[in-house]
Amino acid sequence: MGNTLVRSLLFTDLYELTMARAYEAEGMDQPAVFELFFRKLPPERNFMVAAGVQDLLASVEALGLSDDELDYLRGLGQFPELFLRRLKSFRFAGEVWAVPEGTIVFPNEPLVQVVAPIVEAQVIETLVVNLVHFPSLAASKAARVVLAAAGREVIEFGSRRAHGTGAALRVARASYLMGAVGTSNVLAGKSYGIPVFGTMAHSYIEAHDDEAVAFEAFAGIYPETTLLVDTYDTPGGVRKVIELSRQLGGRFRVRAVRLDSGDLGALAVQARQMLDAAGLNGVRIFASGGLDEHEVAALVAAGAPIDAFGVGTKLAVSEDVPSLDMAYKLVEYAGRPRMKLSSRKATYPGRKQVFRSFEGGSMVRDVIGRHDEAQDGESLLLPVMRGGVRLPAGRVDLEEARVHAHRELERLPEPLRSLAPAEVPYRVDVSPTLQADREALLRALAASVR
Amino acid sequence: MGNTLVRSLLFTDLYELTMARAYEAEGMDQPAVFELFFRKLPPERNFMVAAGVQDLLASVEALGLSDDELDYLRGLGQFPELFLRRLKSFRFAGEVWAVPEGTIVFPNEPLVQVVAPIVEAQVIETLVVNLVHFPSLAASKAARVVLAAAGREVIEFGSRRAHGTGAALRVARASYLMGAVGTSNVLAGKSYGIPVFGTMAHSYIEAHDDEAVAFEAFAGIYPETTLLVDTYDTPGGVRKVIELSRQLGGRFRVRAVRLDSGDLGALAVQARQMLDAAGLNGVRIFASGGLDEHEVAALVAAGAPIDAFGVGTKLAVSEDVPSLDMAYKLVEYAGRPRMKLSSRKATYPGRKQVFRSFEGGSMVRDVIGRHDEAQDGESLLLPVMRGGVRLPAGRVDLEEARVHAHRELERLPEPLRSLAPAEVPYRVDVSPTLQADREALLRALAASVR
Repeated sequence: MGNTLVRSLLFTDLYELTMARAYEAEGMDQPAVFELFFRKLPPERNFMVAAGVQDLLASVEALGLSDDELDYLRGLGQFPELFLRRLKSFRFAGEVWAVPEGTIVFPNEPLVQVVAPIVEAQVIETLVVNLVHFPSLAASKAARVVLAAAGREVIEFGSRRAHGTGAALRVARASYLMGAVGTSNVLAGKSYGIPVFGTMAHSYIEAHDDEAVAFEAFAGIYPETTLLVDTYDTPGGVRKVIELSRQLGGRFRVRAVRLDSGDLGALAVQARQMLDAAGLNGVRIFASGGLDEHEVAALVAAGAPIDAFGVGTKLAVSEDVPSLDMAYKLVEYAGRPRMKLSSRKATYPGRKQVFRSFEGGSMVRDVIGRHDEAQDGESLLLPVMRGGVRLPAGRVDLEEARVHAHRELERLPEPLRSLAPAEVPYRVDVSPTLQADREALLRALAASVR
Repeated sequence: MGNTLVRSLLFTDLYELTMARAYEAEGMDQPAVFELFFRKLPPERNFMVAAGVQDLLASVEALGLSDDELDYLRGLGQFPELFLRRLKSFRFAGEVWAVPEGTIVFPNEPLVQVVAPIVEAQVIETLVVNLVHFPSLAASKAARVVLAAAGREVIEFGSRRAHGTGAALRVARASYLMGAVGTSNVLAGKSYGIPVFGTMAHSYIEAHDDEAVAFEAFAGIYPETTLLVDTYDTPGGVRKVIELSRQLGGRFRVRAVRLDSGDLGALAVQARQMLDAAGLNGVRIFASGGLDEHEVAALVAAGAPIDAFGVGTKLAVSEDVPSLDMAYKLVEYAGRPRMKLSSRKATYPGRKQVFRSFEGGSMVRDVIGRHDEAQDGESLLLPVMRGGVRLPAGRVDLEEARVHAHRELERLPEPLRSLAPAEVPYRVDVSPTLQADREALLRALAASVR
């Protein structure tokens, strides 16, 4: 697995295929519209960020079945040969609209909209949710960490505890998208062109019989390195870095020390004082160790002299919000709006568009409307795939997406930038037209269910 | 990505490679022992389950670098040509010990132990943690769901919200390992030989103008199917299933109805009464919709007439415990025990073994000791790889591992089977020899740090 591209149509819940076969048997081949959205913000979040769409589109474009995979399906004994042959030549040839990666999104706003014959739109459901849900969670968490760091550098570090190797790559990408300066994951660096960072772990120090010897050896090989100073005792580690600087004189070019445990704020103050007193004002302080956005914000607020943060596990698994109620729902079939009733959740039928208004450089209001209505504001959903082939907006470079994400964070209204829940949530209205459509459909369904 | 096998040495944190280069430059090629363990149980857990080792070993055996990957490393400008050439011919040729997949484990017990020249043992760190951490979390969560279901069937359903496609496959495998009867994920079914389940989603019902028409069409194609009855109104849906049975007479072979929203306990009672009154005693009730182990246990305790549970998101992301403080630590190098000091966490140096004692068919006590000491009880760590090649214990069939996991759950002491925290945690002792080793090393380190 050199990259994260899924090419197999078998990455799906079985029911997508059983439904597909039924649609075919019933001659149901009309266009369907499915939309991916989430129902509400987690209590800890003022906004979410859309991500993962570029990977999704690449997968959808490449989706198919090997002979081996077809044999497996045949062996399930649930599909007739004719249907299997159709699946074998499956190619998604539909249309996809999506909000650009890095866009701020709110409940009920479609992140992705698929318009295709129902079989094609249905069989990609599992993949659509899987490939957008987690990257969006990770991007949202990364956005909070980057906001909390208030201009200090953030490096993503969470590969080991991400949920699998693919998740590790996606976290690295989502973090960089939202403003992290890089990742520790080398394969992510290669796969996405993200800067990679890393020098030494505790094991390196421990493998040497003496910490000072380890520092000297490492700095000899990598003169401009970061030395990890907390293996035995943080101030003692800093003292050895200072001793090394005296020993090396002009040849000392160590760039930073890393603190990875203990009271990072107090240790950073102490380390800064020691380094400055030794004339090592240029040696930066890098802090890591179980950090999340709240700890980063507290360190920044306390004025801790920390120049860069390494953020790992809690970012990589989106610890406080490891899942979101994100769903891919049929909203239209054969030209008619569709909706589920039983859950009584406020979902809206029909194909939509999101219109966002700005004032003084800040986003101030979204309107969710029918896709074909006229509303003020920027339309968030753009066409990214047509006839199953990616359009330019579906092949956006990560650097370009990162510029967009940066602008999105800049346009975020002040109360939403806070880590704490905003007193007044962002305003998202439903257009009167869409509201009327929903009410008409509710009446029709109530009549037909009776 | 037809399977989850990682073959690239680039799936690593950069520092593993910078350290490797330093070790080489310093001529440090002595054997090292690294151990993978976790530091403490999450408050919600009475035990954890080890999983993921089989996938890890397959990856380690296959690990290498493509020319393309080597070029990328060269481009980083941090590695001399000689080192790059060595990396290109890298092959892990060390020894690995591990507890069998499905084994119950406790804090400080090594799940995996790697014995190899330090470069080899070091560069696989990120992969070892990544490939065992998440499957172990998923297996532990699945064990709780299976225990809560108390003999009713559990089907894993969480692919769409797992953290990526690889995570989805690993959740399916971990769930089946711990006693789920299958998964909804077709690729997991093919990759691991797991039974797959699934019939229809709400979109299928909604795409039809009438629920009764949808039921009739689907049952016509799949006579022994499960019909989803909650799209508009659950009792109304059940009524339509009953009407269909009257219409089809002897040809009615629908096996189950699925409830996916609302008060599942009350709706199951109502559905059971309606089905029984209609003579459909053989139609089973399948429940799903945001379930976790606590909700499953509550439904079971209330006597809800539910025959099988579909469990998705909360299992797939290990919602309450999305990460564990699991680490891969150097414990020995060049024959000498090693340990980090700064965190003051109770870790133990030196190569270990875990000895487990049983009484009356239950596990009663573990002793963590030195690997070469004699202790009563079963040794949990077994050799699984030698010379970089998997041994039979490193190529265990999933079905065989599932039998082992089942036996492990049977041998779990009663208080630990509860979802609530046990009043008295399981007893894990550290052998006096290992304790003495730790104290001696602490004294030596304190002396050398001073």
